[in-house]
Amino acid sequence: MTPDIRIVEAAAADVPVILELILGLADYEKLSDQVTATEEKLRETLFGSHRGADVLLAYTGGECTGFALFFPNYSTFLARPGIFLEDLYVKPEWRGKGIGTALLRRVAAIARERGCGRLEWEVLDWNAPSIGFYKSLGAVPMDEWTKYRVTGEALEKLALV
Amino acid sequence: MTPDIRIVEAAAADVPVILELILGLADYEKLSDQVTATEEKLRETLFGSHRGADVLLAYTGGECTGFALFFPNYSTFLARPGIFLEDLYVKPEWRGKGIGTALLRRVAAIARERGCGRLEWEVLDWNAPSIGFYKSLGAVPMDEWTKYRVTGEALEKLALV
Repeated sequence: MTPDIRIVEAAAADVPVILELILGLADYEKLSDQVTATEEKLRETLFGSHRGADVLLAYTGGECTGFALFFPNYSTFLARPGIFLEDLYVKPEWRGKGIGTALLRRVAAIARERGCGRLEWEVLDWNAPSIGFYKSLGAVPMDEWTKYRVTGEALEKLALV
Repeated sequence: MTPDIRIVEAAAADVPVILELILGLADYEKLSDQVTATEEKLRETLFGSHRGADVLLAYTGGECTGFALFFPNYSTFLARPGIFLEDLYVKPEWRGKGIGTALLRRVAAIARERGCGRLEWEVLDWNAPSIGFYKSLGAVPMDEWTKYRVTGEALEKLALV
């Protein structure tokens, strides 16, 4: 049975719920040791004077059951904006009920409204259930590309001219 | 001998030069068939009312010899903004003279000024010279992750609720 799913834009008052969902996602991805987010930092960077990303919350009945967080990116080859979906997460006990699909469809609809050429996100290679789900929706893996990251001291050092 | 390198922010008048550099990058990446960018679309999306990305140009003497194009991203685990470097390109005849390093250092300095936790970009797996260069600067490959993309008709279909 498909539950009644509502997708709403998050507001500052939702920060405790958002942090709980981020911690749930990090646990699922086995990356909890990387999380330094706090309610205060989320409030400042997501709902302060400069908003770093958009957040959608999924509600099933009265319970918040998942979220999507995304921001604009840009393709020079297309000379068009796109959307990068940083996080898509549904609480374990609510999976398989169409909540992730509903969140993803809403983000895709926003991408279309904004004239975006692409919707992109990243998946851990061992996350077979998600990969199957994404491929079923027409997503294509960009297998030839690897992301590189500079952070911490390496970033500080690189920034010194 | 290290040439005199100047890094400047691009303006709308630089669009023809930017398109030439994008076409050079696409040729190097063997992706020229994906380029639908035009001067008009670049002018609108990079220098119009909503700027999709920042562009830096490298000049060596009077010649524009390379460019970097980047935009903000966001890490939920850090609750901090970051920078995604979409393009970094130096004209073939000017490589090995420190121009790419100068562009990357400037982007890293901007990341630090903006309080960013990370600077990230993507590299094609066969691009060994670039991979060696990036690793020498302290960049770490995010090998466990694969990017997925929905575009064209698949994106239209996903957006239909």
